Amino acid sequence: MDLGLLYSGGKDSSLAALLLDSFYSVTLVTATFGITDDWKHARRSADSTGFEFRTLDLDPAVAEEAVDRLQNDGFPRHAIQQVHTHALEELAGEDFSAIADGTRRDDRVPSVSRAQAQSLEDRHEVDYIAPLSGFGRRAVDRLVDAHLAVESGPSESIPRADYEAELRALLAERAGREAVFETFPDHEQTSVTGFR
Amino acid sequence: MDLGLLYSGGKDSSLAALLLDSFYSVTLVTATFGITDDWKHARRSADSTGFEFRTLDLDPAVAEEAVDRLQNDGFPRHAIQQVHTHALEELAGEDFSAIADGTRRDDRVPSVSRAQAQSLEDRHEVDYIAPLSGFGRRAVDRLVDAHLAVESGPSESIPRADYEAELRALLAERAGREAVFETFPDHEQTSVTGFR
Repeated sequence: MDLGLLYSGGKDSSLAALLLDSFYSVTLVTATFGITDDWKHARRSADSTGFEFRTLDLDPAVAEEAVDRLQNDGFPRHAIQQVHTHALEELAGEDFSAIADGTRRDDRVPSVSRAQAQSLEDRHEVDYIAPLSGFGRRAVDRLVDAHLAVESGPSESIPRADYEAELRALLAERAGREAVFETFPDHEQTSVTGFR
Repeated sequence: MDLGLLYSGGKDSSLAALLLDSFYSVTLVTATFGITDDWKHARRSADSTGFEFRTLDLDPAVAEEAVDRLQNDGFPRHAIQQVHTHALEELAGEDFSAIADGTRRDDRVPSVSRAQAQSLEDRHEVDYIAPLSGFGRRAVDRLVDAHLAVESGPSESIPRADYEAELRALLAERAGREAVFETFPDHEQTSVTGFR
């Protein structure tokens, strides 16, 4: 059965692909607003893993709303959640029998509740799967160490294609790079460079 | 890494074993109070799948308490949850690096909250994994159809080794077979007879 997996090139979505690989025909799908070409980083990670890859166009108006939210909130949580929800809706409208993402049990954001999952499935007649949602942080880290080759560093220096990159770019355009540093907490990002 | 999976011989725990098989050295573990020898049904299913198998002794006092609860409630939900929690605690005390069960996203019972999962992990220094918790009912059914050979029928006629069998036996001993029919709703059970 064909499955489209929301893919950033990071360790979580790459591990999700590996977990599903024996059971589905997995296509890695990187969502983009067309603001930057950061999706190409995900394509490079995808190429290193051998999975099929495609992009998914998101509505630029959703990016504008998300950055409004970012600027109001002063932190990225709700904005990221808004964009993830939009991306899942768009992916569910594509021609996959099942869709998936890399959300983990211990993630605060993005998160997809059981009710949201069932609503997505019912409205789009698609299975929604969160293969990492039954794994805690340490279990994920151990599987990543065992199965993925990864480079990691601060968000600024690691090329990847989560929604953050495009929201950062839009925020920088509106309010300057200083606003980006104030709004997004420093955190370690990862980019997958292949399987072990 | 070695992982102990709570195993009933039914489709959910068998599918959980398959999902984990590429990433862990999986042992199927069937919990028993020693009230009946229904655990042998799980051993037969385990043998048909080729995974390692062992039993795990539960505290008979917990079965007595669970049947007290059954008799007070008139329905099995809380009693089953009590027993599952006990079984996970006992399993976490064994010498596995990771433990798992077959709970699904859409299960009402047994269920393990994120807080319970983290508590189990922290107290026992073990990873707790619920590989089906990111899958809805239809996705599980499709994977079962594709990968498992299953026989199904009403609970009474299908040999398996979930906690229900022993709680039913204990309740019948205390209050007669009529009480069992009144307390446990009729529902379809499955027993796995191999892989496809």
